[in-house]
Amino acid sequence: MKIRRSERLIDITHYLLERPHTLIPLTFFAKRYESAKSSISEDLGIIRRTFATRGTGILETVPGAAGGVRFIPTISEEEAKQFITEMTVRLAEQSRLLPGGYVYLSDLLGQPEVLRQVGRLIATQYVDQKIDAVMTVATKGVPIAQSVSMYLNVPFVIVRRDSKITEGSTVSVNYVSGSSERVEKMELSKRSLPRGARVLVVDDFMKGGGTVNGMRSLITEFEAELVGITVFAESTFDGPRAIDDYTALLSVDKVNSQSDTIHVKAGNYLQRAFKH
Amino acid sequence: MKIRRSERLIDITHYLLERPHTLIPLTFFAKRYESAKSSISEDLGIIRRTFATRGTGILETVPGAAGGVRFIPTISEEEAKQFITEMTVRLAEQSRLLPGGYVYLSDLLGQPEVLRQVGRLIATQYVDQKIDAVMTVATKGVPIAQSVSMYLNVPFVIVRRDSKITEGSTVSVNYVSGSSERVEKMELSKRSLPRGARVLVVDDFMKGGGTVNGMRSLITEFEAELVGITVFAESTFDGPRAIDDYTALLSVDKVNSQSDTIHVKAGNYLQRAFKH
Repeated sequence: MKIRRSERLIDITHYLLERPHTLIPLTFFAKRYESAKSSISEDLGIIRRTFATRGTGILETVPGAAGGVRFIPTISEEEAKQFITEMTVRLAEQSRLLPGGYVYLSDLLGQPEVLRQVGRLIATQYVDQKIDAVMTVATKGVPIAQSVSMYLNVPFVIVRRDSKITEGSTVSVNYVSGSSERVEKMELSKRSLPRGARVLVVDDFMKGGGTVNGMRSLITEFEAELVGITVFAESTFDGPRAIDDYTALLSVDKVNSQSDTIHVKAGNYLQRAFKH
Repeated sequence: MKIRRSERLIDITHYLLERPHTLIPLTFFAKRYESAKSSISEDLGIIRRTFATRGTGILETVPGAAGGVRFIPTISEEEAKQFITEMTVRLAEQSRLLPGGYVYLSDLLGQPEVLRQVGRLIATQYVDQKIDAVMTVATKGVPIAQSVSMYLNVPFVIVRRDSKITEGSTVSVNYVSGSSERVEKMELSKRSLPRGARVLVVDDFMKGGGTVNGMRSLITEFEAELVGITVFAESTFDGPRAIDDYTALLSVDKVNSQSDTIHVKAGNYLQRAFKH
């Protein structure tokens, strides 16, 4: 049975969206729909233009016998800006204020549509770099790491503060927790990261940068390479940070427990991701 | 500028896939593409048929003034079977065997394409039921909960074994850990689950069922309702389980540390999800 163009366009779109950053040969589609390669080529041209117009992402063409197409999800600067503005409002909600000046984030980071956008934003920032794995620390960084990993189509690894029997042999490092100044320990399963892997570190919240700095040490222990650090939100911190080269989507400027207000502004993401 | 059908089909497909279980009025698309509602209706008919043929999911039509279309992602029995068979092979890899008869799973549950399929499988099982939230326990259940939540388009909540200052007030319960027979404690942020919420519990691995039973108690404490329990893998357990009504994608039959072999078979998922 021959498949019509309209059906092909729908199914190719679905197929590509489920497999970001994966090279798919034209012959695969030609066979799947029993269509000529020239027709598939035309289909892909229409999809490429639509994806570009709508800001869905880039459909890259790799020429040659071993070539094909590769879908690279991105977000437009406009959509990114809109999302960040929306988040500054939501983060500043008074009901988020917890004792000690902490901000409640778990509801936002448990919402699929928020996580989808966070994943798209962070993946867009690293679109030109080779990344082999996304790293985060348990528990609250996990949803962010997973979302980024979906859009980059690479695995994510979870660093833990507590030892678990189900992780096998681990490599551990000590780090100074910025907020408490205590020396703590974090570890990662030995088999989770190959030597030389290029690693992107993500986390939900950064204050002094101690936790992120611990992950940096772990990456060194694994003889892997740190590509970048992006956090959902940073907060103002008195004194030197353990980390200075990082990206934050949001910046919690000041938490005032007296007046029960949270000041939130955009972080440096837009400048960094869109190279201003 | 008028948008051609081919471009509409691509963009509608993308729009729907990103927003599962969301009712979208025809007028939204008509406005987005400056097209007649009758054209949009035809587009949606083509998408509905293609999604059905390819096993992408169901495009539901809700008639009337407040109506529209709703995309419900599902997986076909054939694709589900294929994925489970593939997983039985991967889980049985000798290198997964850890001291004490544990099985290393973290690599699989950190791979986006594995998590996508796990999410689609579990979401398909509950496609006819109203679900308000997905619940799991930190840390290893989180990726599964997130994936299911993406396909059901509902939030997920994370129960913790350790108290965190960033969760605000919590409700805690004690539970008997099946493997160690110890009484432990788990807790959930008070604001994370509204009364009456219909909750789906997921986890990575179930032995005695103690952890899942703890989550059941928590749901009762929140005056919420348990809709179902699905785990990625169960393992054989000597003695009565704390939980008997549950679904498992995989069943780790026997871990033999002497001969270094792991026996894995399909769990009861296929029977339960496809009502045999």
